[in-house]
Amino acid sequence: MPTRFSSKDYLLSPNISNTNLFGQVSGIDHNGVKTTLDVIEEQPLTIYLNSQEVVTAMTIGDYPEYLAIGFLYNQRMLKQEDELLSVEFDPELDVVVVRTDRHTDFEAKLQKKTRTSGCAIGTVFGDMMEGLDDISLPDSKITTSWMYSLATKISRTDSLYLKVGAIHGTVLCKKSEPICYMEDVGRHNAVDKISGWMISEGIKADDKILYTTGRLTSEMVIKTAHMGIPILISRSGFTAWGVELAKKLNMTLIGRMKGQRFCCLSGEQRLIFDFKLK
Amino acid sequence: MPTRFSSKDYLLSPNISNTNLFGQVSGIDHNGVKTTLDVIEEQPLTIYLNSQEVVTAMTIGDYPEYLAIGFLYNQRMLKQEDELLSVEFDPELDVVVVRTDRHTDFEAKLQKKTRTSGCAIGTVFGDMMEGLDDISLPDSKITTSWMYSLATKISRTDSLYLKVGAIHGTVLCKKSEPICYMEDVGRHNAVDKISGWMISEGIKADDKILYTTGRLTSEMVIKTAHMGIPILISRSGFTAWGVELAKKLNMTLIGRMKGQRFCCLSGEQRLIFDFKLK
Repeated sequence: MPTRFSSKDYLLSPNISNTNLFGQVSGIDHNGVKTTLDVIEEQPLTIYLNSQEVVTAMTIGDYPEYLAIGFLYNQRMLKQEDELLSVEFDPELDVVVVRTDRHTDFEAKLQKKTRTSGCAIGTVFGDMMEGLDDISLPDSKITTSWMYSLATKISRTDSLYLKVGAIHGTVLCKKSEPICYMEDVGRHNAVDKISGWMISEGIKADDKILYTTGRLTSEMVIKTAHMGIPILISRSGFTAWGVELAKKLNMTLIGRMKGQRFCCLSGEQRLIFDFKLK
Repeated sequence: MPTRFSSKDYLLSPNISNTNLFGQVSGIDHNGVKTTLDVIEEQPLTIYLNSQEVVTAMTIGDYPEYLAIGFLYNQRMLKQEDELLSVEFDPELDVVVVRTDRHTDFEAKLQKKTRTSGCAIGTVFGDMMEGLDDISLPDSKITTSWMYSLATKISRTDSLYLKVGAIHGTVLCKKSEPICYMEDVGRHNAVDKISGWMISEGIKADDKILYTTGRLTSEMVIKTAHMGIPILISRSGFTAWGVELAKKLNMTLIGRMKGQRFCCLSGEQRLIFDFKLK
């Protein structure tokens, strides 16, 4: 195994040489000595679905098209069968416009709901829950040796996290191989960018594993379920609702993965213990 | 210094014996052995301002009234001079209704904006930026010995983080004393709960220090500025926009505080180096 993992080991991974993603800031350290830090950029991105403004997200700014597609899809505003006519990013306005050939029902729904409730945030979360009952996650397997191999490879990848910190990462994996690595200031954005990439490239989900640095909340579990991925792993912890949803969805949920320790709180039938712990 | 800090050392702190805040979940560990974990609860809370539904936030569920007041205030939907007629929490519906004696301009503004843009999320962020230019943060001081003392006390406090993990904490401090400790699944909720408590109790802000476990993003800096607190500290890192805003607002921003190391990227004139590092 190489000591470092780089972009050539992935189909897509953070571009740590893209200097638009971080800025240099001067300050002082604990000794009172002048110091200069690389810090991650964060900028608003407004997502439109056809003529409808949907959300303004704070993002590091890479892969805006994937973020827009993945966000709309994970919120059930786009469906996989929707034909995307165009996805246009305007870097001056910080706007992405996703155009579909059909009028999505979301636009009518949102206009109706906003007339009654005045605010779409609750609506947006409500829509995420839609269609969860119809999801049937496949009976794939995951071995503990894949898990340990993935954790090692991911932690050795040249990432924005290692370079500037203050950022979450999500990695799409197949068996012991990390395939696509996305990072963002919000852990949800990183997942949405993976989702947008999978839809754009026609990547199938049923043999995949999703790894995230963030916590396993209800929202992470819902997004992973909508993406059709049966296994979600994190080095962070769980929330009770995240676990409850994963159990209902028959999703394998593995958290607190550090070194060779972890906890599996849902879908343990997919786990194969093939690695001999010392 | 006592080895542990408990609720009696604070005016308000996490109630780790409130069993509504976490649930027990069974699963298996890395040895395939059955294990039981305490995991944090997470539930929706819908906030109304008078007859207007504003947002549905995911929260651990403690102090819903403080969360509602603090959120509305930090979003500039409530002003400090607004008289609150009542703040009612309905635990069956997971709803908090904040009532004011005047019609807040927010309601008219939101209805107007939702007619044009259809979604309030962008609006909400836009509103947060309102009034920032009028903020003048006071010329208080902070010594490095207070900082190290605060970090030690906070890390030794009996918290939900130590008990179940997967949670962010925010602590309001004065000199070397932590005063009010709030935790939540979202770091913004923890800050909003502190803000709601300060408004409800008439706590003044200009001699205070805010400590957070979360990253120093634009949103954290904006909330802290609206609360009138001149100094914000985190053990996590910075975003570029967070630093830029802090500089504009003349806020002292200290991050990456671990052990006796830290970085101050804005407002370093408030820092007094009185602690002799070994």
